Amino acid sequence: MPHCISSTDVDAAYERVKPYVTRTPVLTSSFFSSLSDRDVQFKCEAFQKTGSFKFRGATNATRMYIEGGGGAAVVTHSSGNHAQALALAGSMNSIPAHIIMPNNAPEAKRRAVEETYKANVTLCDPTKRQETADGVLASLDGAEFIHPSEDPRVIAGQGTVSKELIEQCGEPLDVVIIPVGGGGLASGNSVALRAAWGDNVKIVLAEPEIVDDAKRSFESGELQGHEGGVAKPSVADGLKTTLGPNTFPIVKDLCDDIMTVSEKEILRCTKLVWERMKVMIEPSAGVGVGVLISDEFKQKYPADKYKRVGVVLCGGNVDVGKTIVKMQEMGL
Amino acid sequence: MPHCISSTDVDAAYERVKPYVTRTPVLTSSFFSSLSDRDVQFKCEAFQKTGSFKFRGATNATRMYIEGGGGAAVVTHSSGNHAQALALAGSMNSIPAHIIMPNNAPEAKRRAVEETYKANVTLCDPTKRQETADGVLASLDGAEFIHPSEDPRVIAGQGTVSKELIEQCGEPLDVVIIPVGGGGLASGNSVALRAAWGDNVKIVLAEPEIVDDAKRSFESGELQGHEGGVAKPSVADGLKTTLGPNTFPIVKDLCDDIMTVSEKEILRCTKLVWERMKVMIEPSAGVGVGVLISDEFKQKYPADKYKRVGVVLCGGNVDVGKTIVKMQEMGL
Repeated sequence: MPHCISSTDVDAAYERVKPYVTRTPVLTSSFFSSLSDRDVQFKCEAFQKTGSFKFRGATNATRMYIEGGGGAAVVTHSSGNHAQALALAGSMNSIPAHIIMPNNAPEAKRRAVEETYKANVTLCDPTKRQETADGVLASLDGAEFIHPSEDPRVIAGQGTVSKELIEQCGEPLDVVIIPVGGGGLASGNSVALRAAWGDNVKIVLAEPEIVDDAKRSFESGELQGHEGGVAKPSVADGLKTTLGPNTFPIVKDLCDDIMTVSEKEILRCTKLVWERMKVMIEPSAGVGVGVLISDEFKQKYPADKYKRVGVVLCGGNVDVGKTIVKMQEMGL
Repeated sequence: MPHCISSTDVDAAYERVKPYVTRTPVLTSSFFSSLSDRDVQFKCEAFQKTGSFKFRGATNATRMYIEGGGGAAVVTHSSGNHAQALALAGSMNSIPAHIIMPNNAPEAKRRAVEETYKANVTLCDPTKRQETADGVLASLDGAEFIHPSEDPRVIAGQGTVSKELIEQCGEPLDVVIIPVGGGGLASGNSVALRAAWGDNVKIVLAEPEIVDDAKRSFESGELQGHEGGVAKPSVADGLKTTLGPNTFPIVKDLCDDIMTVSEKEILRCTKLVWERMKVMIEPSAGVGVGVLISDEFKQKYPADKYKRVGVVLCGGNVDVGKTIVKMQEMGL
């Protein structure tokens, strides 16, 4: 299957978003380097504007829309990090952002989008997100729908994480570990990493065990949905969406592996990053750390051969109080 | 009163510790910049090795001891960040570190020093720390005592925070806000900042309201102890120690102001940094943020004249679970 973007698109996105996004730092950690017996570099997208990498894709899409003559509004459906990201991308670029959110989304998330990032929120029945978005779009002449993970402009924007990482990490890395949900981050960065380092870099995706659709899709070669049709409630709520027709072909062709992590291990790793690295990651970012220190990773990618590892800490939007309670309930 | 170090000592410390310390990133935050109506740069010492700036001073002192021919052991009394810092400085330089800790120190802190950083711990009656340290020193021929804040080598080492900040911040800053406890960080950095920017930079120290000895010392011109002789139990436990004969003259001569922050505001600001910047700071670092957004700071240093502000986020060693409970108890 053809890919919806090439590395040229990521290169262009990199130049396009540069004035808007934060060039996030790469941190090392003697604790995790020692624990995994590797040289580990953590790309800290928790420090990105709006608290996750999603701002990169939202900005690239919004800027391309404007450069193409658009200016009416950007529209999406999301109750998560893409909602905040597109809201800020809209307000930074002086165009309205309309966010469709399910009416069971946490009040705090709605308020963040409305009050902090100045977007318009439309609440809807959780099963009617696309229809509601279509309705909003139809009411706004010239408005543009920007999908959280399937939009090629979004995918190219997310790839800029690796453009920076490649510049920041010094020598090439042997492995890069990337969390996967809808696959925008995974596919955009796979394109960038393969263009820079070819087959010398292994690309390993990290997914929660209880929503392992990407792993099943990757292994079967066919795009799979959630088991039973509905996402189980993973603590890594940013990774509950499934791959789609644009992200799956890239993941299938360019990634080397998908490994899964249990809920308890995700929370344990999240806590370890809080305590040892002092970075307030969300559990979705803990999934990548879970892979890094797993036996499966150690066996498939031995430390003597795969010494230099990059891990994308994808975001930091977490309710610390609630997450601490979950950790305590699990005896962590 | 003469000063125990000059900027030459900080310059030398900077070159000396460079191979050992982490060059910590400077982060910006649109949230705090907007809230304070300034351009704010946060120097993130929470990401320093052992989780606080203390590793700089401990490393400078340990290296100077070794360069002077020493090699028996380094010794200190501390239950806090200096303990971990000197423990790691010792093990990184292959000499024993002996840490005297009060027998009421949390088990977790003792284990971190012993197990993570491989130091020798001697427990003692909380009122007999110096005598116990003297006893340990006497038993180790050629061992060196390294005070957490009064040792001039420690003070010079802490000043390297500003040496980096000066290089990283681009244009000079109008104000730098630094938390103050024993005053090692405050005095070392005041020396570095005055040497670089003269009187153009305002140096404002930040102290918990309930342990305001530094403010009282600064205002009276005479070194003051704790009210009633004992430190009150501030949530900012890294700032409970008092200035001493080496740090006070520097603070008195080189700083412009000391402002205090209430316990509730310290916790509120700590939480804001967690949520908005995704940096897991300890409450001692929240004190500086409390000053940044205070009315007192706004009035004395108006944003139109003092636009560019640096804030030293001094450390990140915090028990998240316990601190969240304290926050909830205060309705935060």
